[in-house]
Amino acid sequence: MPQTPHVERHFTAGDRVRDIVIGMSDGLTVPFALAAGLSGAVATSRLVVTAGFAEVAAGSIAMGLGGYLAARGDAEHYASELAREEQEIRDVPEVEAAEVAEVLTSYGVTTSEAGTIVAAMRQRPVQWRDFMMRFELGLEKPDPKRALQSALTIAISYIVGGLIPLSPYLAVASAQAALKASVIVTLIALMVFGYVKGHFTGSGPLRSAVQTTVIGSLAAAAAFGIARAIS
Amino acid sequence: MPQTPHVERHFTAGDRVRDIVIGMSDGLTVPFALAAGLSGAVATSRLVVTAGFAEVAAGSIAMGLGGYLAARGDAEHYASELAREEQEIRDVPEVEAAEVAEVLTSYGVTTSEAGTIVAAMRQRPVQWRDFMMRFELGLEKPDPKRALQSALTIAISYIVGGLIPLSPYLAVASAQAALKASVIVTLIALMVFGYVKGHFTGSGPLRSAVQTTVIGSLAAAAAFGIARAIS
Repeated sequence: MPQTPHVERHFTAGDRVRDIVIGMSDGLTVPFALAAGLSGAVATSRLVVTAGFAEVAAGSIAMGLGGYLAARGDAEHYASELAREEQEIRDVPEVEAAEVAEVLTSYGVTTSEAGTIVAAMRQRPVQWRDFMMRFELGLEKPDPKRALQSALTIAISYIVGGLIPLSPYLAVASAQAALKASVIVTLIALMVFGYVKGHFTGSGPLRSAVQTTVIGSLAAAAAFGIARAIS
Repeated sequence: MPQTPHVERHFTAGDRVRDIVIGMSDGLTVPFALAAGLSGAVATSRLVVTAGFAEVAAGSIAMGLGGYLAARGDAEHYASELAREEQEIRDVPEVEAAEVAEVLTSYGVTTSEAGTIVAAMRQRPVQWRDFMMRFELGLEKPDPKRALQSALTIAISYIVGGLIPLSPYLAVASAQAALKASVIVTLIALMVFGYVKGHFTGSGPLRSAVQTTVIGSLAAAAAFGIARAIS
């Protein structure tokens, strides 16, 4: 397994945080926008709640299963490329040795200097394979447990996010009245979420808060406008 | 810029294809599931169309803008890390030289062999920086035009995907009748889309067709069940 000992990724969040961000940013935005859009077309909250929960069910399953299959696909892709590199090192070592040299010379290392490393690699087929995986193909070994964990984290975050804009419609019978409460509650949630997200991803909390809120507002405004125009 | 001359990524699709897949898989699934869910709760297609179009507007904006900001964020992250590596190479060259050696020795290259490469890097600060960007941090230079292109591709694919399950509701007044047509049309579209997607991503066309169809069906069934239970 490639283990670069001194990785300087100060500014990238962990996988769990990434999955929460993926699920919650869509969960807060799309059900919010759908509910707002329907509030412009129907009078009672009942139907907004029905559509909203149907959307949350559909969205969380689509995103969660989608994330699961993507992670599974990454793991399979890694395994098949690993087997291919092993076979190439066994069957066409000259070609692979030339590839190590090519990688190094593309960074300005001279052919004779690269030759030293190529010779070292040829003594150690396992590290050679790992070197090719990371430096030629740019692949990192995926965590086998990640697929299921990732799916559940994304789905739960989507559901938690989606319940926030829908909650006022559960409490207030008039869709118009619930809309006002939903807009206030969700804009606050988007700002807080954006702020925390910006803190974790290193893109700046305030800027992230503004971006997240703008996306949510634009999506809701577009949905509202379209629903009004059609109905 | 790191240019690995002989990249063997046979099995990864281009960025454009990736964006189409991202937009269309959600666009086919979520509006389909929402429309199916609402068909279990309301009698006329009119309201399904209103909710469906509101969802397509919200989803395409949320996904498109989300993709735009993610791509912009990647570009900014790359630029700030590049500046940091340049500064470190200028200010603490000994530390950075030790890091090059560390990367190489983690692959079984001996310290003295790594020394040759370290000495070569020190003669060429630009390639040295590029080496650190790719091999220590695992970052690749993003295309500056990608953010906008990616946003538009994702949004348009979402809209195109979403129009397929909604089209029967535009033509047939009874939601129940439209639902049947929508299920047939969308399942065919999911199979074709999954097949083509599997071809591009190399995960196997038939398997991908089955997976895509199962996700869409599960999401629609869950949305239908929840909408029925609530209404």
